Amino acid sequence: MGHKLPKGFLANGIHCGAKKKRKDLSLFYSESPCAVAALFTRNLVKAAPVVLAREQLNKNARTNAVVVNSGNANCMTGERGMNDARLMARAMAEVLKVPEDAVLVSSTGIIGEYMDTRPIIRGMAHLAAGLSSDGLVAAAEGIMTTDRFYKIASRTFVAGGKKIVMTGVAKGAGMVKPDMATILCYILTDANISQKALKKALASSAGDSFHAITVDGDMSTNDTVMLLANGASGNKLIAGRGKDFETFQKNLNAVSVELAKMIVRDGEGAGKFIEVKVKGARSRADAKKAADAVAGSLLVKCAVLGGDPNWGRIASSAGASGVDLDPNKMEIVLDGVTFFKNGRAAAHVNRKVSSVFKGEDVRIELNLHGGRGEAVVYTCEISKKYITLNSYYTT
Amino acid sequence: MGHKLPKGFLANGIHCGAKKKRKDLSLFYSESPCAVAALFTRNLVKAAPVVLAREQLNKNARTNAVVVNSGNANCMTGERGMNDARLMARAMAEVLKVPEDAVLVSSTGIIGEYMDTRPIIRGMAHLAAGLSSDGLVAAAEGIMTTDRFYKIASRTFVAGGKKIVMTGVAKGAGMVKPDMATILCYILTDANISQKALKKALASSAGDSFHAITVDGDMSTNDTVMLLANGASGNKLIAGRGKDFETFQKNLNAVSVELAKMIVRDGEGAGKFIEVKVKGARSRADAKKAADAVAGSLLVKCAVLGGDPNWGRIASSAGASGVDLDPNKMEIVLDGVTFFKNGRAAAHVNRKVSSVFKGEDVRIELNLHGGRGEAVVYTCEISKKYITLNSYYTT
Repeated sequence: MGHKLPKGFLANGIHCGAKKKRKDLSLFYSESPCAVAALFTRNLVKAAPVVLAREQLNKNARTNAVVVNSGNANCMTGERGMNDARLMARAMAEVLKVPEDAVLVSSTGIIGEYMDTRPIIRGMAHLAAGLSSDGLVAAAEGIMTTDRFYKIASRTFVAGGKKIVMTGVAKGAGMVKPDMATILCYILTDANISQKALKKALASSAGDSFHAITVDGDMSTNDTVMLLANGASGNKLIAGRGKDFETFQKNLNAVSVELAKMIVRDGEGAGKFIEVKVKGARSRADAKKAADAVAGSLLVKCAVLGGDPNWGRIASSAGASGVDLDPNKMEIVLDGVTFFKNGRAAAHVNRKVSSVFKGEDVRIELNLHGGRGEAVVYTCEISKKYITLNSYYTT
Repeated sequence: MGHKLPKGFLANGIHCGAKKKRKDLSLFYSESPCAVAALFTRNLVKAAPVVLAREQLNKNARTNAVVVNSGNANCMTGERGMNDARLMARAMAEVLKVPEDAVLVSSTGIIGEYMDTRPIIRGMAHLAAGLSSDGLVAAAEGIMTTDRFYKIASRTFVAGGKKIVMTGVAKGAGMVKPDMATILCYILTDANISQKALKKALASSAGDSFHAITVDGDMSTNDTVMLLANGASGNKLIAGRGKDFETFQKNLNAVSVELAKMIVRDGEGAGKFIEVKVKGARSRADAKKAADAVAGSLLVKCAVLGGDPNWGRIASSAGASGVDLDPNKMEIVLDGVTFFKNGRAAAHVNRKVSSVFKGEDVRIELNLHGGRGEAVVYTCEISKKYITLNSYYTT
């Protein structure tokens, strides 16, 4: 059962020649202009297309299309990079016959090299000519870098009296950390929803999805999550509250979490999928901080890689997280087996618990027994393959 | 030329049987009681011997000896662990015929397992009987865990009218990060110096040494740096200011930095030694924060491992560090070669600069051109060997 594009959206992805063999240029297009909400990297080093897209969205320009190139991030490229991003938007707009501001640009790939825009510009007519309601997979492939598989999630639901489709496409792999690093994600919907409601919904969904994942602790310069709504389903306008909004939010959350988890599963060289849940913190923020520390600990990841329930490393990383806690109140449960509780190691802990950390999916639960704050973070084990992949990325 | 112990100090290290083959028990002993300054881990999860030593030092007890076991960290072991630490102090004090409070205990090794104190207690008579002014290397070996080589640094200088010897011994490897994680370090001196001056000197020296190193970003539960002064050189008492103090401080800094660098060079599976220098930050704290971020970036470490001057990752990790900076003002110099300056990549940057990241020692310099804050952080590349070592640590 293939995923489908919402009404009024077309997509395509092609190989234009910026990269050697794989698809490297994608287009998401709506026949009618869209309301857009977007989240961008908080890295102070922002790629040119991120700077440009923020400018365009601040002007409240309505958007018809997003064009994405993979292979070059167009970052740390100064004024020339800004000109290249503007050139891409203008050229795509001319082909699509829409205003220049109606085309947003994203880029992903190597940082600090000037783009060769020639194959990209040359490819645009071909890219647009191939736009199709079946072009979702091609577009999802065109935004990939070291990703091993394309990432699509979608939901169909009823709101405002009409059937609404919401479909998201993402790329990830490597450099993924809280603050949604090296993520490109485009969620398209035919819902008729106010710009304000759209922004509220995206901000709310990100906390438990794109901001709740980490691969290697690095935050990218190009991270972008865009939510485009073209209203083609003809539903009664969804405002920022009420039952219809709640339905929209619930489905957006589901799509976002599904894509976020796929990104983690496809972390560079990733093997096991790790869920870190912290409960009993003084606040949600504290729970998040402790969960990030555990999920980000290289020694914890190595323990998972080795199938070794070295729970002391989990206690240690939480203790060093900056969160106030009482070590003696900690409760540490790995894959359902309690290793530490009430100030002492569980009796069976001879580190030979054969069932723990052996499956593809691993659960680390830490209850601080100091409050009601909870948070979940998703991450993956780090492997030798990660080291290999990232040691020779540019050479 | 062997390093020597300061006057009035004796040391020894033996294999007592807590570990399989290597030395596992060390003793540093002073014939006369010492003034002591100490720094301990800031991890909220603190090992029992750390809790005990802090209690003893808060009572201002004078110290004659430090006994150190390797193999078990005696951490997350609750009241039983505290009793084991006290038992070690008491048993060692009995053998040495000094007050119980005059013996400090340190432990390093696995977290969360109860200690088997029997071989340790049994070995103490033998350990004390072998105390010698030539026992430095044996003692340095006895505190090692996954260390590949023992770490000793010493200086001889004149202060207060007498020749003073200062000799430090350390262990490190793995889990080493800012906040001096998994470091045990004992610096011994025959200087006659006030407790207050000793504390001031140690606090000052740590910032550029033990707090300026990172291997994998994890902070240990057992970190301990102790500075013991027994006054045996008979110099005029050194107070917390003036020329003699400055001389003492300068030599302490030198010993501390030398030991800290050795710890980084011996990081688990470490290959290359990486110096990260940040200049031009708004403050020293900002410079430190940016340097920590660059040194802590797994992607930067991987770039060094691959001999790949991927300077974009350095810009990106600084940009994500939380430090206010202008990306266009950044200047990035790798092994003396400028890669980015004045808002643009250097003309020669085709990523084929063959000299960069190829030697054993690597230098990353980042000038933010936004102030006068400077900091240096030392780290090492991460290798596949690190992953292997830490995946099977306990099993």
